[in-house]
Amino acid sequence: MAHAHRPAPEGLDAFFAPRGVAVVGASAEPGGPGHQVVAQLQRTHYAGGIYPVNPRATEVLGLPCYPSILQVPGPVDLAVVVVPAPACLVVAAQLAARRQQRGDAAAAVVVSGGFAEVGDAGRQLQDQLVRTLRTAGIRLVGPNCVGVADAHVGLTTSFDLGPYPAGGASLLSQSGAFAMSFLQWARPLEMVGLCKLASVGNMADVSLTELLAYLAHDPCTRVVGVYLEGVADARAFVQTAARVGQDKPVVVLKPGRTEQGARAARSHTGSVASPDAVYEGAFRQAGVVRARTVSEFYGVVRAFERLPLPRGDRVAVLSAVGGPGTICVDEVAAQSHLRLAHFSPRTRERLRAVLSDLAAVGQPEGYVDMTGALVARTHGDALRILLEDDGVDAVVLLTPPPAFLEEEEVARSVLEAYRDQPEGRRKPVLVVITFGDAALAARRLLEKGGLCTFEFPEEAVRVLARMVAYARARERLRS
Amino acid sequence: MAHAHRPAPEGLDAFFAPRGVAVVGASAEPGGPGHQVVAQLQRTHYAGGIYPVNPRATEVLGLPCYPSILQVPGPVDLAVVVVPAPACLVVAAQLAARRQQRGDAAAAVVVSGGFAEVGDAGRQLQDQLVRTLRTAGIRLVGPNCVGVADAHVGLTTSFDLGPYPAGGASLLSQSGAFAMSFLQWARPLEMVGLCKLASVGNMADVSLTELLAYLAHDPCTRVVGVYLEGVADARAFVQTAARVGQDKPVVVLKPGRTEQGARAARSHTGSVASPDAVYEGAFRQAGVVRARTVSEFYGVVRAFERLPLPRGDRVAVLSAVGGPGTICVDEVAAQSHLRLAHFSPRTRERLRAVLSDLAAVGQPEGYVDMTGALVARTHGDALRILLEDDGVDAVVLLTPPPAFLEEEEVARSVLEAYRDQPEGRRKPVLVVITFGDAALAARRLLEKGGLCTFEFPEEAVRVLARMVAYARARERLRS
Repeated sequence: MAHAHRPAPEGLDAFFAPRGVAVVGASAEPGGPGHQVVAQLQRTHYAGGIYPVNPRATEVLGLPCYPSILQVPGPVDLAVVVVPAPACLVVAAQLAARRQQRGDAAAAVVVSGGFAEVGDAGRQLQDQLVRTLRTAGIRLVGPNCVGVADAHVGLTTSFDLGPYPAGGASLLSQSGAFAMSFLQWARPLEMVGLCKLASVGNMADVSLTELLAYLAHDPCTRVVGVYLEGVADARAFVQTAARVGQDKPVVVLKPGRTEQGARAARSHTGSVASPDAVYEGAFRQAGVVRARTVSEFYGVVRAFERLPLPRGDRVAVLSAVGGPGTICVDEVAAQSHLRLAHFSPRTRERLRAVLSDLAAVGQPEGYVDMTGALVARTHGDALRILLEDDGVDAVVLLTPPPAFLEEEEVARSVLEAYRDQPEGRRKPVLVVITFGDAALAARRLLEKGGLCTFEFPEEAVRVLARMVAYARARERLRS
Repeated sequence: MAHAHRPAPEGLDAFFAPRGVAVVGASAEPGGPGHQVVAQLQRTHYAGGIYPVNPRATEVLGLPCYPSILQVPGPVDLAVVVVPAPACLVVAAQLAARRQQRGDAAAAVVVSGGFAEVGDAGRQLQDQLVRTLRTAGIRLVGPNCVGVADAHVGLTTSFDLGPYPAGGASLLSQSGAFAMSFLQWARPLEMVGLCKLASVGNMADVSLTELLAYLAHDPCTRVVGVYLEGVADARAFVQTAARVGQDKPVVVLKPGRTEQGARAARSHTGSVASPDAVYEGAFRQAGVVRARTVSEFYGVVRAFERLPLPRGDRVAVLSAVGGPGTICVDEVAAQSHLRLAHFSPRTRERLRAVLSDLAAVGQPEGYVDMTGALVARTHGDALRILLEDDGVDAVVLLTPPPAFLEEEEVARSVLEAYRDQPEGRRKPVLVVITFGDAALAARRLLEKGGLCTFEFPEEAVRVLARMVAYARARERLRS
């Protein structure tokens, strides 16, 4: 096994590039996490060693099962622990012993709940767990979490992630369900490519801030999405975010604007939150993109993952559907970070040449309503003309109903126009496809080709506004 | 044919309950609307007569084709006209002649564009069209529209609607693409049941206001959704909406808050809009539910279509997922129309008895975080307890990840608890399923069972807030 001959990974690399993974509490019985974690690791074709550990089993899913972590043969950098909370202390002691004897076992993910989030007794247990691991030089993600993943190396400690399309979005989350929701939601159309994932749970040791700093230097991470309920080191988090933001966007969803929301967060991850207003101002200073809803978080992370940043705020709207086009124009005009582009005379002339006589060009400025009676490739032709106008920084494109035109042909012509832009000088194109599953094939094609699709016109426009705002903030952070 | 012996329908009934439909401009060649409209009528198993009309064809899709409307044999109340704009005047004259000779042909849908929306020449054409029809006592929907549908009788004049699940939502739209987008979007999971649809296009004769008044007396319409770009008779529209609102909610999506949005609307349907602020205030007075985004429009219409109105503003949040649950609580607390419920001591006690020790009840008030380690039926048990608390007016329920629990079992237990409520005293339950297609089977089951599902917690909460606001407005309108 090639992995065995690598040197031991250092620092947080032990979580994302371990030579071997032990699953402590592995089980041959389907249903529980002790079974699922092993099954998912197998499904992702993780190339390192997978070592089930359980004194009451000899084999799990075809793999030999070891009575304790001490018996696991070959380098094991990461232990995933799924035994009940009190038993975690025993496991921690064994991990410490192994680390002392063998020098590996530098990282542990404790999936189990029953710690600080349930009250004082749990908090004591958690403190003891951290003490034992820390003394031995073992870093801990969790407890009460779904752990870590790296889609590029096919690693996951989650019980339901499995293989995931690899890409540039890394996620840090104080809620496993939140991170999984996003990934499951985006999976069918492959709307986001995953780089690294860390569900931090109670954050007893490795913190969001530390992970964020780690991702700053991760070459495959192009955007970091953070679900944040509250951190003790809010100032350090924001400072780190500002540093990361000079290179790549940090997108944060943070509930707790209300007293009740903060209370719910407290009972969820035991996190002590600073008042929301403190975050709000600090985020703005730090160039953090604060998503206002879950849906906006998904959209913004997806857009940053695959689209180039806009170089300005001048938006063209190109629509094959009058009503949704009108809604889109209204939303662009209502966004303080955006304005409708002014087309050059040459652009108007070129558009007239490819569009039908019924089309409305520049009513208002920046808007092209293609209306019906089109052929599929007109969409790409018109898009190309808009992208070539120096007065246009980004295009929102709304596609026609799939009833008359071959939707995949429309998609291909759009993709071609997008890709023909000179490398390094590409402008972002956000595609709105409003006809649900009736246009699924086109959406899939566009997403696969590196474009970003949306079901709702306002959604695309708001995402674009956040991109423009970040592009400006980045300039400020860099200067 | 039973239809032939019915008396001629009166007024707008000729559009929605015609004894026969002629498709003028029908075509044997697939691709164009002249073919598609006939095909869709056949697909919906429309029980009345379907009569293709075209002097250059003898048969369309197995049906005899007539040279003009004058040759069509048996009662034909509705003519769908898809010939190019100038030819529409000839058709109008023939319709007028037929109406004089035979007494039927009381309604026409003109699908074709090329009228007022393209400028002065088109406007003259449109005026002439209306004059001819009006003189003959023929009502017109359109031109430049997709026409009408009634899912209960299997009637459609659209070129891509086909058979649609029948229900209580009626849609009036100044954009065919908007209405079709909603229906296509909702179709796979059957998230809305359609009653009547009218895409009014340029609204040269039959207006939104008249249709709205008509739907007030339509027994199967439970909610009216309107996509409005602008009407000349804004005052009459709002007065009618206030009257309708005493019985059933009127939900409006109206772009045009900005100058540019208003301009786009003008070039789309040639509509002259009053300033948006006029609508905003009038809508509030009239109890109109103004959706702020397309997604909210969909959600609110869907919820009114199948859920009972809440009798108050006290919301319980029942969650199996910590992060999304926290987001949900935060959103409820942030909504001025909602507040978190206070559980009775008995409710707390009963919840404790069915939930795991790790569950958090009432942290904050109104919130139940079930956490993990549940069985499927716990969801229904806990929901039932909340619904039986007199201090709870509505429940937002967030389901667990589909990895461990049989998602359909969870859905069935939830449905059972919902349905066991005494008829006529049911409280609304909004279900949030955040795991995308991974939980599709559960969503389908819940929607089929009469519940309303959402992908995003904020979406469900905002929809509920609009329901509460409408319930209050209705009381005011009725008093």
